[in-house]
Amino acid sequence: MPQGRIEHCRTGIVGLDEVTAGGLPRGRTTLLSGGPGCGKTLLATEFLVRGAELGEPGLFVPFEETAEEVCANGASLGWDLPALVEDGSLLIDHVAVERDQIEQTGDYSLDGLLVRLGFAIDRIGAKRVVLDTLEVLFSALDDTAVLRAELRRLFGWLKERGVTAIVTAERSGQGITRYGLEEYVSDCVIVLDHRVTDELAVRRMRIVKFRGSRHSSSELPFLIAPGGLSVVPLSRFD
Amino acid sequence: MPQGRIEHCRTGIVGLDEVTAGGLPRGRTTLLSGGPGCGKTLLATEFLVRGAELGEPGLFVPFEETAEEVCANGASLGWDLPALVEDGSLLIDHVAVERDQIEQTGDYSLDGLLVRLGFAIDRIGAKRVVLDTLEVLFSALDDTAVLRAELRRLFGWLKERGVTAIVTAERSGQGITRYGLEEYVSDCVIVLDHRVTDELAVRRMRIVKFRGSRHSSSELPFLIAPGGLSVVPLSRFD
Amino acid sequence: MPQGRIEHCRTGIVGLDEVTAGGLPRGRTTLLSGGPGCGKTLLATEFLVRGAELGEPGLFVPFEETAEEVCANGASLGWDLPALVEDGSLLIDHVAVERDQIEQTGDYSLDGLLVRLGFAIDRIGAKRVVLDTLEVLFSALDDTAVLRAELRRLFGWLKERGVTAIVTAERSGQGITRYGLEEYVSDCVIVLDHRVTDELAVRRMRIVKFRGSRHSSSELPFLIAPGGLSVVPLSRFD
Amino acid sequence: MPQGRIEHCRTGIVGLDEVTAGGLPRGRTTLLSGGPGCGKTLLATEFLVRGAELGEPGLFVPFEETAEEVCANGASLGWDLPALVEDGSLLIDHVAVERDQIEQTGDYSLDGLLVRLGFAIDRIGAKRVVLDTLEVLFSALDDTAVLRAELRRLFGWLKERGVTAIVTAERSGQGITRYGLEEYVSDCVIVLDHRVTDELAVRRMRIVKFRGSRHSSSELPFLIAPGGLSVVPLSRFD
Amino acid sequence: MPQGRIEHCRTGIVGLDEVTAGGLPRGRTTLLSGGPGCGKTLLATEFLVRGAELGEPGLFVPFEETAEEVCANGASLGWDLPALVEDGSLLIDHVAVERDQIEQTGDYSLDGLLVRLGFAIDRIGAKRVVLDTLEVLFSALDDTAVLRAELRRLFGWLKERGVTAIVTAERSGQGITRYGLEEYVSDCVIVLDHRVTDELAVRRMRIVKFRGSRHSSSELPFLIAPGGLSVVPLSRFD
Amino acid sequence: MPQGRIEHCRTGIVGLDEVTAGGLPRGRTTLLSGGPGCGKTLLATEFLVRGAELGEPGLFVPFEETAEEVCANGASLGWDLPALVEDGSLLIDHVAVERDQIEQTGDYSLDGLLVRLGFAIDRIGAKRVVLDTLEVLFSALDDTAVLRAELRRLFGWLKERGVTAIVTAERSGQGITRYGLEEYVSDCVIVLDHRVTDELAVRRMRIVKFRGSRHSSSELPFLIAPGGLSVVPLSRFD
Ligand SMILES: Nc1ncnc2c1ncn2[C@@H]1O[C@H](COP(=O)(O)OP(=O)(O)O)[C@@H](O)[C@H]1O
Ligand SMILES: Nc1ncnc2c1ncn2[C@@H]1O[C@H](COP(=O)(O)OP(=O)(O)O)[C@@H](O)[C@H]1O
Ligand SMILES: Nc1ncnc2c1ncn2[C@@H]1O[C@H](COP(=O)(O)OP(=O)(O)O)[C@@H](O)[C@H]1O
Ligand SMILES: Nc1ncnc2c1ncn2[C@@H]1O[C@H](COP(=O)(O)OP(=O)(O)O)[C@@H](O)[C@H]1O
Ligand SMILES: Nc1ncnc2c1ncn2[C@@H]1O[C@H](COP(=O)(O)OP(=O)(O)O)[C@@H](O)[C@H]1O
Ligand SMILES: Nc1ncnc2c1ncn2[C@@H]1O[C@H](COP(=O)(O)OP(=O)(O)O)[C@@H](O)[C@H]1O
Ligand SMILES: [Mg+2]
Ligand SMILES: [Mg+2]
Ligand SMILES: [Mg+2]
Ligand SMILES: [Mg+2]
Ligand SMILES: [Mg+2]
Ligand SMILES: [Mg+2]
Repeated sequence: MPQGRIEHCRTGIVGLDEVTAGGLPRGRTTLLSGGPGCGKTLLATEFLVRGAELGEPGLFVPFEETAEEVCANGASLGWDLPALVEDGSLLIDHVAVERDQIEQTGDYSLDGLLVRLGFAIDRIGAKRVVLDTLEVLFSALDDTAVLRAELRRLFGWLKERGVTAIVTAERSGQGITRYGLEEYVSDCVIVLDHRVTDELAVRRMRIVKFRGSRHSSSELPFLIAPGGLSVVPLSRFD
Repeated sequence: MPQGRIEHCRTGIVGLDEVTAGGLPRGRTTLLSGGPGCGKTLLATEFLVRGAELGEPGLFVPFEETAEEVCANGASLGWDLPALVEDGSLLIDHVAVERDQIEQTGDYSLDGLLVRLGFAIDRIGAKRVVLDTLEVLFSALDDTAVLRAELRRLFGWLKERGVTAIVTAERSGQGITRYGLEEYVSDCVIVLDHRVTDELAVRRMRIVKFRGSRHSSSELPFLIAPGGLSVVPLSRFD
Repeated sequence: MPQGRIEHCRTGIVGLDEVTAGGLPRGRTTLLSGGPGCGKTLLATEFLVRGAELGEPGLFVPFEETAEEVCANGASLGWDLPALVEDGSLLIDHVAVERDQIEQTGDYSLDGLLVRLGFAIDRIGAKRVVLDTLEVLFSALDDTAVLRAELRRLFGWLKERGVTAIVTAERSGQGITRYGLEEYVSDCVIVLDHRVTDELAVRRMRIVKFRGSRHSSSELPFLIAPGGLSVVPLSRFD
Repeated sequence: MPQGRIEHCRTGIVGLDEVTAGGLPRGRTTLLSGGPGCGKTLLATEFLVRGAELGEPGLFVPFEETAEEVCANGASLGWDLPALVEDGSLLIDHVAVERDQIEQTGDYSLDGLLVRLGFAIDRIGAKRVVLDTLEVLFSALDDTAVLRAELRRLFGWLKERGVTAIVTAERSGQGITRYGLEEYVSDCVIVLDHRVTDELAVRRMRIVKFRGSRHSSSELPFLIAPGGLSVVPLSRFD
Repeated sequence: MPQGRIEHCRTGIVGLDEVTAGGLPRGRTTLLSGGPGCGKTLLATEFLVRGAELGEPGLFVPFEETAEEVCANGASLGWDLPALVEDGSLLIDHVAVERDQIEQTGDYSLDGLLVRLGFAIDRIGAKRVVLDTLEVLFSALDDTAVLRAELRRLFGWLKERGVTAIVTAERSGQGITRYGLEEYVSDCVIVLDHRVTDELAVRRMRIVKFRGSRHSSSELPFLIAPGGLSVVPLSRFD
Repeated sequence: MPQGRIEHCRTGIVGLDEVTAGGLPRGRTTLLSGGPGCGKTLLATEFLVRGAELGEPGLFVPFEETAEEVCANGASLGWDLPALVEDGSLLIDHVAVERDQIEQTGDYSLDGLLVRLGFAIDRIGAKRVVLDTLEVLFSALDDTAVLRAELRRLFGWLKERGVTAIVTAERSGQGITRYGLEEYVSDCVIVLDHRVTDELAVRRMRIVKFRGSRHSSSELPFLIAPGGLSVVPLSRFD
C-alpha cells in the first residue's frame, strides 16, 4: 500500500499557490463554487492558461459557452486563448446539453460524456481539466442518492485518468452548492464570493476544505484585472 | 478561431455606459432583474429609445402590456414612442399568452415565438431587442433542467441573430431571479432595487456580472425623472 | 397609435391624491395589498364613497361580506352607504363562493363572474369598481402560470370596460401578495401595513409601483378615523 | 337596507371592554389566536362566565377537553362552572373527533356539528358561543380554498343564529394562525402572546382587527390571576 | 358534575415543585420537550426515582434504549435503578419498534401498545408513567389530523388509567415540538434547552403551559449533577 | 440486571479525553457531525491511530475514499497508516455504493453491510470501528420512520459486537445533522465547526450529548496540525 503524501499542482495564479501550500491537489478534483459573476470561469481558465505555460496541456469543457465566447471573455484579461489552442496546449470542447436529451432520457448520460472527455484528454495529452459547470450535467437528477453516486463516479474517473481537475458549481442561498452535498464528496473545495457590504462589492475567496493539506481558511480578498486574478494571501495557514 | 474581445453597445442612458466601460455586451443578452415597479421596463424602453437615436432600430416584445399601454407609460417620461414606431425605428409587438395555450400544451412554445421574433427583427432591421418579461414565457415550466436548456436556446438564438438584447426577470425573496439559475446562464446581469430603509425608498442598480468586461460592482443610486433614467456612477470599476 | 399619457382618477381620500400626482390610474386596476385589518376594505370603500360625491357611480363586489355588513362597517366611520345605494351612485353586489363550486369545477369560473360584473356595471353606469378580495377568486388555482394568465384576463377585462378599479389582496409572510406575482401583473400597487414596533402599532401606506406616473415611494403614515382615511403626505415624489 | 352600526357585546373581562370601545362585535365571531398556554381557553371561558352574570347564557364547545377538565381548570381561578351549568346559564358540550371519523370521510363534517350546535344553543337560549379550537375541526382539510369556504360557512351560520362567538386558533411560526387565512375571513381578531424576553415571560394581547369599530392596536400586557384575566389598557384607541 | 381543582403530583426534583406550585398535574400527562442531550430522559427518570421514594411505583417505557442502558445512564448520577426494579417500585419495559412493523402497517399500532402498557401498569400498580419518546411512536404518521387524534387518544387513555405521566418529545428548529401541535393537545408542557451563548452552554427549563395552575413562566437555569437535577427557582409565579 | 456505569474509551486525542471525563462511551456509538472539511475524517482516523497504539485494533470503513486516499490524507499529518495496516492493528475497508445498487433496490441493504463489517471486525479483532459517512448509507431512504429504525439497528448491532464506534454525519443548514433525528438516536454526539467570523475561520468542537457522563458542553477551539488534533479544554465540566 502506497505511503505517499498528497502532491500539489501549481496553479500559477498570483497568491493562490501560497495559501494552498503549493497549489491544488494533483490528480484530484477541486470544486470551485460561487454565485453568478464571482469569477469561477475566469479562475478555472487561468488555471489552464498557467498550466499551458508550465507545460501541462489543458482541456476546457464549457457546457454553456462556446469556444468563441470563452476566447472573447478571456481576451478582456489579455489572454490569447486561440494561440494556446493553436499550439496544442489548450483544447476547448463545448458540450451542449439540449432539452430533448434531458426529456427523452430523463437524465444526462455521464457515460457518453466520459467517452468524449477521454478522447479529448488523449488528443492533447491533457494534464489539467476544467468542467464548467456541474449544474448542467446533473440538473436533471432529482434523487440525491443517485446524484451522490454519479458525482463519485465522475470524480473517480478523473482521478483514474490522472488529471488535476477543477469543476465549477453554483451556489444557492446560504449553502456552498445547490444540493449541499457536492462539497462533501470533493477532495478540495474553494468558494468565491462577491457580496455587497454597505453598497460596495468585494471579491473574496475561501478554501473550505483541502484533504491532506494545510491551507489558509480565512476569507481572502482577490482581484480580477488585466493579466488575471490575484489573491491577497492575508493568512497562509490558520 | 476569432481572437476578438467583447464589444460594448452604448445604451445612451445617463451614467450607465460609464459604469459598464461603454455599454451592454453587443450581440449578447443582458438579464435585467428586479421587484415590481423598480424600473425594469423603463430602463429597457429607454435602451430602445436611445438606440433609435443612435440609428439602431429596436424591437420591444411586452408580454403583459399592450403597445398602447407601453406608449402611455413612456409618455410620462416625455418619450414619443408612437413617433419612433412611425419612422420605423421601433416596433412594439405585444405577445399575449393565454390560459388555454398553457393548459393545452403544458408549455409555452418557444419555437412559435422565435419565428415571430425573427419576422419582427427582419421587418425593421432591429439591432436591439427587449423581451419583457421572462416569467411569462417560462412560468409553465417546472423542470429546472428543461428551463435551463430553454433559456440557453433563447439566448443562443438571439446571439445568432446578432442583436443586443435585454430580457427582464422578476425577483423572488432574496435571490436575483425566481428560479435562481437565470443569472448563471446569462452573459450580463443587472439587478434593480427599490427598497425601503427607515421608511424612505431609494432606487439602486447593481451590475452583478458582465462576462468579458470590467464594470462597477457597487450598488449605484439611480433616478427616474422626465427624460429618462440617470445612474449615479459612484464607482466605475471595483 | 395614441400618444396619450396616463390619466389620474381623483380618489378624494385625504392626502392620497397628493402623493399619487392626482389619484389612481384612470381606466386601470390598482392592487391594494395588506394584512388583516390594515384598512384595505375601508380604503376601497372610501374610494367609492368619494367617487359617488364626484359623480362617478361605483360597484362594490365583496366576496366575503354581505351588503349589510359592509354598510354596518362603513357606518362606524359615518358613511351612509345605504343612501348612496338608494340614489343609484353605489351598487353592492355580494358574490358568495361556496365549497361545492370549488370542489366540482376545481376552479372558480371567471367567465361567470365577468358576465355578472358586466351587468352590474351597466346597471348603474359604474365608473369605479372594487373587488374585495382576489384570494377568494383564485384560491383554488394552484398553477401559477394559469393564475398569471387569469389575472391578466381579469385586469384586461376591467380595462376594456373603461372602469377604474381597486382589487384587494392578502399578504403572506414578507412578500407583497400571497403568490408573489400579482404585483408584477398590476399597473399600480399600494401596500398597507399595521405593524407593531415597540409594542405600538402604526398604520403605513406605500405606493410600490405606478406605471406611467411619478409618486411618493416612502412609507406614509395614515389614520382611520370618523369621516375616513387620511394619509400624511410626508414626501410627494421621491 | 339597514343603516345600523356594529353593536358591542360587553365581555365583562377587566380592561378588555375599554380597549374595544365596549366589547366584542355582537352577533359576529371573534377569532382568538395564540400559542400553547397563552390563555385562549381561559379568556373564552371568562367571556361565558361574565355572560352568565350579565344574563346571557353561554355554550362552550371544547373539542379536546372534557367538561370535567374544563371545570377543574376554571376552578383554579375561582370560577364555579358546575354551578353555572346547574342553573342553566352555561352548557359545556364536549365534541370528540376520533381518528376513524377523519380517516373514513377524509373530512370532519361541519353539517353534523352545526345541527348539534343548533340544538345546544336552543336548549339554553345561548347568546354566547365558544368553539375551542378551530384546528380540530379543520385539520383534515388540506385545500385552502375549501377551508376558506368552510370557515365562511361556519361564521355565517353563527351570525344567522344571532350569537356572539369566540373561536380559538393556534399559531404557527410567526403568523397569526396555522393557515394564514383565518384572520382574513374573521370580523374581529385578537392575538395572545406569552413570549420570553431576557429569560422572562410576559403575557400580551393585541387586537389585530375589528371591522366596524375603533380599538386599541398596541400590545397590551395582561395577567391571569385568581378571579380571571385583567388587561392593562395602556392605550385605548390608536 | 365535579367541582374539583387540579391536584399536583410532587416530583421530588429540587426546585421543580416550587415553580409548579406543587408538582406536575396529577392524573394528567406532561409533555417534556427539548433538543438532544438536554436532559429529558434524566428528568423523566428522576420523576420515577423520586416517585418510588414517595411510594408511587413507576413504569418507564423507553423506545430506543434498553433497560440495561437506562440503568447505566442513571448510575452515573448515583441512582440505583436495578434496586428499584428489584423491590417492585420501578418497571422498565423497553418497547422496540422495528422497520418491518412500520413498513408493513404503514403505522405503529397504538392499540397494541396500550394493551402492553395496561399490563405493565397493573403489574406494579404504577402511579407514574414515562414514555420516551413520542417521535418513535408517531414518526410513521404523516397526516397531522390523524396524529392529533392519536395523541388525544394516548393522553386520554393515560388519564383514564389515573396515572401521572411524562411523555418526551423532540424539538425541531425554533418550535416546541416536531409537528408543532403536540403542545396544544397537552395539559402541561415543559421545554428544556441547552443552547450555546458566547461559546458557553447553559441548561434552561421553561414551563410553557400548565392548565389549571399558576407556575413560573420564566426561563429557569438548571443543573445535572450527581444526585440528580436541580432547578433554580428564579421566579415562582409570573 | 447489571448495575454498571458507562465505561470510557480513551481516545488518545490531545484534550479530548479531558473534556469527556475519560473518552468516548465504550461499547457505544458516537455521532460525529460537521460541515465539509471541518475535521470529521481526521478525528475519526486519529481515534483509530491512537487505538492501535493502545493495543486496540481498529476498522475504518470509508464509503467515499479509497484506502490509498485515506493513507495519503493521513500522511500529511505524519501518520503512517500503511504500517498500521501491515502489523494488523488497522483495517481499511472501502465500501463503494454505486448508482445501480441504489436504483435497483431503492435502498442500500444494511444487512449486506453488517455481514461484511462482521467479517472485518473478526479478522483483526477490532475494538474500534469508524463508519465514514452515514449519509452514503442512508441517502436513499426518504421515510424518516424507517431511517430511524435503521439507525437504531445499526447502532444496536455495533453495541452487540462490543466495539466502540464513531459514525460521521454531515450537517445541513443550522441543524446538527441532515435529517435532524440522528442526534436523538445516538448515545454521544460531537459537533465540529469551522465557521468564519470577521473573515477568519476558527475550528470548534462541541460535545452536545453524552448519555451517562458529565462532559464539557462549551464550544472548544481545536487545531489540526502535524501529529494530529488538539482540543483546548477551556472548560471541563459545565
Ligand atoms: N477585463 C475584466 N476586468 C475586470 N473584471 C472582469 C473582466 N472580465 C470579467 N471581469 C469580471 O469577471 C466576471 C466574470 O467572471 P466569471 O468567471 O465568468 O464568473 P462566473 O463563472 O463565476 O459566473 C465579470 O462579471 C466581471 O465582473
Ligand atoms: N413620469 C414618471 N416620473 C417618475 N417616476 C416614474 C414615472 N413614470 C414611472 N415612474 C416610476 O417607474 C415605475 C415603473 O417602472 P417600470 O419600469 O414599469 O417597473 P418594472 O417594469 O420594474 O415593474 C413606477 O412604479 C414609478 O415609480
Ligand atoms: N370607526 C372606526 N374608527 C377607527 N378605526 C376603525 C373604525 N372602523 C374600523 N376601523 C379599523 O379598520 C380596520 C378594518 O379595516 P378593513 O378595511 O376592514 O381591513 P382589511 O380589509 O384590510 O382587513 C379595523 O380592524 C379597525 O382597526
Ligand atoms: N390559577 C392560575 N393562576 C395563574 N395562571 C393560571 C392559572 N390557571 C392557569 N393559568 C395559566 O393559564 C394557562 C392556561 O391557559 P389556557 O387558556 O388553557 O391556554 P390556551 O388555551 O391558550 O392553551 C396556563 O398555562 C397557566 O399559565
Ligand atoms: N453523571 C453526569 N453528570 C453530569 N451530566 C450528566 C451526567 N450524565 C448525563 N449527563 C448529561 O445529561 C445528558 C443526557 O441527558 P438525557 O436526559 O439523556 O438527554 P435527552 O433525553 O434530552 O436527550 C448528557 O448529554 C449529559 O450532558
Ligand atoms: N496536514 C494538514 N495540516 C493542517 N490541516 C490539515 C492537514 N491535512 C488536512 N488538514 C485540514 O483538515 C481538513 C480535512 O479534514 P477532514 O477530516 O477530511 O474533514 P471532513 O471529514 O470533516 O470533511 C482539510 O480541509 C484541512 O483543512
Ligand atoms: Mg461561469
Ligand atoms: Mg415591467
Ligand atoms: Mg377586508
Ligand atoms: Mg386551550
Ligand atoms: Mg433521551
Ligand atoms: Mg470526511
